[in-house]
Amino acid sequence: MNITRMHGAGGTVMQKLIKETILGNLENTKIEGGIGLESLDDASTIPIGDKEIVFTVDGHTVHPIFFPGGDIGRISVCGTVNDLSVMGAKPVALSLSIVLPEGFDIEKLDKIMKSINEACKEAGVAIITGDTKVSNVDDIIISSAGIGIVDSGKAVRDCGMKEGDVIIVSGNIGEHGLTILLSREGFEFESELKSDVAPVNGLVQSVLNAGFEINAMKDPTRGGLADSLNEMAEKSDLGILIHEDKIPISDEVQAIGEALGIDPLTVANEGKVVMSVKEKDSEKILEILTAHPLGKNAKIIGNVTSEHKGVLMETIVGKRIVDTPMGDPIPRVC
Amino acid sequence: MNITRMHGAGGTVMQKLIKETILGNLENTKIEGGIGLESLDDASTIPIGDKEIVFTVDGHTVHPIFFPGGDIGRISVCGTVNDLSVMGAKPVALSLSIVLPEGFDIEKLDKIMKSINEACKEAGVAIITGDTKVSNVDDIIISSAGIGIVDSGKAVRDCGMKEGDVIIVSGNIGEHGLTILLSREGFEFESELKSDVAPVNGLVQSVLNAGFEINAMKDPTRGGLADSLNEMAEKSDLGILIHEDKIPISDEVQAIGEALGIDPLTVANEGKVVMSVKEKDSEKILEILTAHPLGKNAKIIGNVTSEHKGVLMETIVGKRIVDTPMGDPIPRVC
Ligand SMILES: Nc1ncnc2c1ncn2[C@@H]1O[C@H](COP(=O)(O)OP(=O)(O)OP(=O)(O)O)[C@@H](O)[C@H]1O
Ligand SMILES: Nc1ncnc2c1ncn2[C@@H]1O[C@H](COP(=O)(O)OP(=O)(O)OP(=O)(O)O)[C@@H](O)[C@H]1O
Ligand SMILES: [Mg+2]
Ligand SMILES: [Mg+2]
Ligand SMILES: [Mg+2]
Ligand SMILES: [Mg+2]
Ligand SMILES: [Mg+2]
Ligand SMILES: [Mg+2]
Repeated sequence: MNITRMHGAGGTVMQKLIKETILGNLENTKIEGGIGLESLDDASTIPIGDKEIVFTVDGHTVHPIFFPGGDIGRISVCGTVNDLSVMGAKPVALSLSIVLPEGFDIEKLDKIMKSINEACKEAGVAIITGDTKVSNVDDIIISSAGIGIVDSGKAVRDCGMKEGDVIIVSGNIGEHGLTILLSREGFEFESELKSDVAPVNGLVQSVLNAGFEINAMKDPTRGGLADSLNEMAEKSDLGILIHEDKIPISDEVQAIGEALGIDPLTVANEGKVVMSVKEKDSEKILEILTAHPLGKNAKIIGNVTSEHKGVLMETIVGKRIVDTPMGDPIPRVC
Repeated sequence: MNITRMHGAGGTVMQKLIKETILGNLENTKIEGGIGLESLDDASTIPIGDKEIVFTVDGHTVHPIFFPGGDIGRISVCGTVNDLSVMGAKPVALSLSIVLPEGFDIEKLDKIMKSINEACKEAGVAIITGDTKVSNVDDIIISSAGIGIVDSGKAVRDCGMKEGDVIIVSGNIGEHGLTILLSREGFEFESELKSDVAPVNGLVQSVLNAGFEINAMKDPTRGGLADSLNEMAEKSDLGILIHEDKIPISDEVQAIGEALGIDPLTVANEGKVVMSVKEKDSEKILEILTAHPLGKNAKIIGNVTSEHKGVLMETIVGKRIVDTPMGDPIPRVC
């Protein structure tokens, strides 16, 4: 069997590869008392004193590397900060492993580093270690690992949904993925669309600092909201019912998705979170989110139920199943 | 200006790129009380309670990916473990960011994962997080970040050499780099040579656990011993005098180096350390090292002096300067 694009696309095909070939071969995947790799959560943890070190990594091969709303540098910081954020952690420091092709213009690297610097300042994190290689790659690749800190036992899992919880999405979906697609050669759409790439740690902390609990949380990146909701439902052994008319989505994304035959539910976001919270807290949490610049379009989109497994969506023509996508429809989206 | 192979080769050309384009653009590079990126040491640190989190990363683009003595999986674990080890830290957990080309044989990935698993068991570390992408690369790339722990203030720096210190190398140099070169197509040398790739944490800890201080330490990877010694000398603002006849090197490496016109002093090692220790401790430390399987060829190779700056080598025809190489002579060596 050979690797296809789908093995890097964040859906069922990739999950199978990770479970069988990666996890299946590893014996040491967990530090005693921490969250291990087998949880396949957004990050894992290492207990230390009365804290846990939260650790995650993302590699970035986005094409093109500069696009409306961001670039590969900004994604490298935000992607990693966001995986730490949805664990409820305070992001602290990142590493920066860069692979460059021969002939790469150093001016472009300079521009990317400036963007990394801006994103780091926005998120309040530092780049404290890195590595640089030159190889046969068609464009720059950046892998950024990240360290965050959370109080012992306070990490937010993706498996923690409770029956009766309410599902909130922090804003309009599908913008990153469609921006990437449209910014490729050959697409001549007139569009104002730009990527939502942003660090969500401030947004998430505004909810946690107000004293609210979040039962489960993810950043809906590759595979989009459809993938994240399914993962939360499956890991929590519960079902989710969402309402199509409540999902925050711009008219433009809706129209472009329809024109291209791409379901925005399956498309990557880079500045969004989806959370499962107690019903009784949900309106107050929504208020906090909508008061934040990154959460102004936040919406309650559904609720958690034990009446079915998986994800169902109420539409004008009745309920339909929202499956885990095989993979994100847009290759090299992040 | 465009990127050349030399920008990824670990010598002066890469150092300039890192200082100017990478470090030069970053404002947040240090966590208060820790060792920051501007130290350009093997890893950086984050204070937490009475400990420091030690954080490092290496990307790996070695070609070929399987070679005598190891493979890209083993290097990915050992490279990161070794950067933590030479900081005096106990390596704890690694991340694994993989980029695969389309068409890559999943059997090969399986073999690499098995090798990663073995190396993790050898080093006593766990893989707790990862990421998988598919992109236009000519072969698999693995970037592994690592977390280690050290007691507050106990991290071993590369800038800590003291006048009168003795320099010890833990074993025969040049084996990794020349193995990689010989295992490439077109080289028809009959050779028993294999890479030294190994996790050195046990070796280093055997010295520290015996209560000895190490004033400065590095793993002589890209750019070899010549690069590491120069970095230690420059950062410590002292000079090093080494003796050619004391440098541990196998006859085979010597012969191959001469045949190919490559100086083994500038070639990458993946299972060695070089340390600067008090003269009075040096014989005892040497004993400890030589008692360990990875240190059996350890040697005292020279000493630290304030009489000159940089690195000088005593040879049969007098002293010569050992410069920082522009870069490792073997591209894609790790
Ligand atoms: N190469 C790998 N080695 C070890 N674990 C991996 C690897 N690839 C993915 N994983 C693990 O699989 C899980 C899912 O990974 P994935 O990359 O989809 O998560 P994510 O970072 O939240 O999403 P995205 O990468 O789209 O931002 C995570 O727990 C991750 O640590
Ligand atoms: N892309 C980068 N971003 C930030 N820091 C970097 C980057 N590349 C290298 N550095 C920093 O520069 C210093 C030297 O890096 P280098 O990779 O040579 O160290 P090393 O890992 O000890 O050597 P090797 O990679 O050969 O094993 C380190 O402090 C490293 O953190
Ligand atoms: Mg995530
Ligand atoms: Mg991620
Ligand atoms: Mg490195
Ligand atoms: Mg090093
Ligand atoms: Mg290294
Ligand atoms: Mg990921």
